[in-house]
Amino acid sequence: MIKVGIVGYGNLGKGVCYAVEKANDLECVGIFTRRAPEKLTPVVNFPVYSINDLEKFKGQIDVLLLCGGSATDLPETTANMLKDFNTVDSFDTHAKIPEYFAKLDKVAKENGTLSAISIGWDPGLFSIMRMLLGAVLPNGNDYTFWGKGVSQGHSDALRRIEGVKNAIQYTIPKEQALDAVRSGVNPELTTREKHLRECFVAVCDGADKEKIENQIKTMPNYFADYDTIVNFVSEDEVNEMQKKLSHGGFVFRSGNTTKDNSHLVEFSLKLDSNPEFTGSVLTAYGRAVAKLAKEGKTGCLTVFDIPLSYLSPNPNEFLREKLL
Amino acid sequence: MIKVGIVGYGNLGKGVCYAVEKANDLECVGIFTRRAPEKLTPVVNFPVYSINDLEKFKGQIDVLLLCGGSATDLPETTANMLKDFNTVDSFDTHAKIPEYFAKLDKVAKENGTLSAISIGWDPGLFSIMRMLLGAVLPNGNDYTFWGKGVSQGHSDALRRIEGVKNAIQYTIPKEQALDAVRSGVNPELTTREKHLRECFVAVCDGADKEKIENQIKTMPNYFADYDTIVNFVSEDEVNEMQKKLSHGGFVFRSGNTTKDNSHLVEFSLKLDSNPEFTGSVLTAYGRAVAKLAKEGKTGCLTVFDIPLSYLSPNPNEFLREKLL
Repeated sequence: MIKVGIVGYGNLGKGVCYAVEKANDLECVGIFTRRAPEKLTPVVNFPVYSINDLEKFKGQIDVLLLCGGSATDLPETTANMLKDFNTVDSFDTHAKIPEYFAKLDKVAKENGTLSAISIGWDPGLFSIMRMLLGAVLPNGNDYTFWGKGVSQGHSDALRRIEGVKNAIQYTIPKEQALDAVRSGVNPELTTREKHLRECFVAVCDGADKEKIENQIKTMPNYFADYDTIVNFVSEDEVNEMQKKLSHGGFVFRSGNTTKDNSHLVEFSLKLDSNPEFTGSVLTAYGRAVAKLAKEGKTGCLTVFDIPLSYLSPNPNEFLREKLL
Repeated sequence: MIKVGIVGYGNLGKGVCYAVEKANDLECVGIFTRRAPEKLTPVVNFPVYSINDLEKFKGQIDVLLLCGGSATDLPETTANMLKDFNTVDSFDTHAKIPEYFAKLDKVAKENGTLSAISIGWDPGLFSIMRMLLGAVLPNGNDYTFWGKGVSQGHSDALRRIEGVKNAIQYTIPKEQALDAVRSGVNPELTTREKHLRECFVAVCDGADKEKIENQIKTMPNYFADYDTIVNFVSEDEVNEMQKKLSHGGFVFRSGNTTKDNSHLVEFSLKLDSNPEFTGSVLTAYGRAVAKLAKEGKTGCLTVFDIPLSYLSPNPNEFLREKLL
């Protein structure tokens, strides 16, 4: 049995709980939380401890599945945990990955531990597709689309506007752009042509809706470069929408091998629950990290470095016979 | 530069030629053929040698890209070449993979060489999808569909019928089955429900078409379990169809993480040229084999064992920065 610890108990932590419970080769040593452990009743029957007690479990956990956020949790805490434990996380601030990688690689090598970073679906499965298909079809383009699904960053931006009580923003790939890619013409697509942004906004009594709508549509970086739809709805409606955590997206590779012969590869996800699916990916890579660490591997890895067989609980003979 | 040799010059060999020519980090030492080398003018300007001269190149080639067939070429010749060279091949007789793997793994380990087998899109990219997505979404089903494209085995079966001059068979996934999978209901699909078989048959003068059609539709293993359409056409028409080597297919994984949340992953290929695309995959894995061999790796590998970064000519820093 591979012994795992789950660090953090937000939506992703819950998703990881479900995935770990389903895996016959994984045993959960505990959920480690910043909250008072006695006040937390997890979705599956795993023991709960204070994060402050984590160091007592050194040597008893094969891998920590880190379920904190990329903004502050992971940058501030992963390196420290990596001194005593192997880790896997879903760090997704694309621009900061090289820096994060370098820092963790150094700590892991100094301490003889192993870390896999940026595990999930983007970065994660989508990265695998971009890399694999780019290597197989070098003369071509890749296209990544996200949605339909909630963008947390854009929803936060809406909520910072004066007069907005609550809001949620959906990123939606434009059908016309998807069709253009599928047609094989290798289109050059602008930001505006790829995605639509749809906002559902609940405002305070007496707020100036026209002004708010204008503020949203002209907001640089977030909305100005997109076609943006703003719907004013009640606070209850926004609350209801926030319960649904569905998401998805597409990666395409379109290219040719000779002048006359072009090829199209399409990979898509339709997810009812983004955190449950991401938690499931994190758990599979947690298994891989535990196995690789047992073989003596140290340092920092990404989805590009881990042979896929390590993700499976099944032996290689089985994989070759049944899945090859 | 990685030095490659191309063994065999059929459709797949030509596809590999195009892919090797495009790769800046690969250098083709030569094409090795059973034909008289002076009679062969390859599609790209690579030297051509007799297969009998291959052993003279021992130590001068990092990896051989084997472009022979799975029926006889590869089972009879790979093990012998593996004594002196690293190899990569597209062995696709699913049922015989474990046996083929065991044999090559033994030879490679005895001789300090490295072999990657069953490289292409199925087995190959489709195997990666089945394995990866099964590990990530263990509580679910996978579905593989092939086509629209030519099945060589089924076309051969048609040509063995008395009175048939020439024939070609297309395997076509049924839209209804694809839609059922996409709906997320996790359908149980029979052989007949998944694929349609469409035959284009040119017969000899005076042949009994009704009898031939009946023979086709009732042929065990090949057609009896399918809805089969038989079209009688001219020999010229069949010849024309045989020039187009397009193919494709789909892999789905459909499953759930909790009772309420299900997920659908779809991977699809639409290929203008099956051999050119397969040749491109073979070439990328050839690069990986050469790199892994240089690191001292020996034995037999499949797509499950090779970290994806090895397929790329780009350094890991680049992959992390641009593709993760």
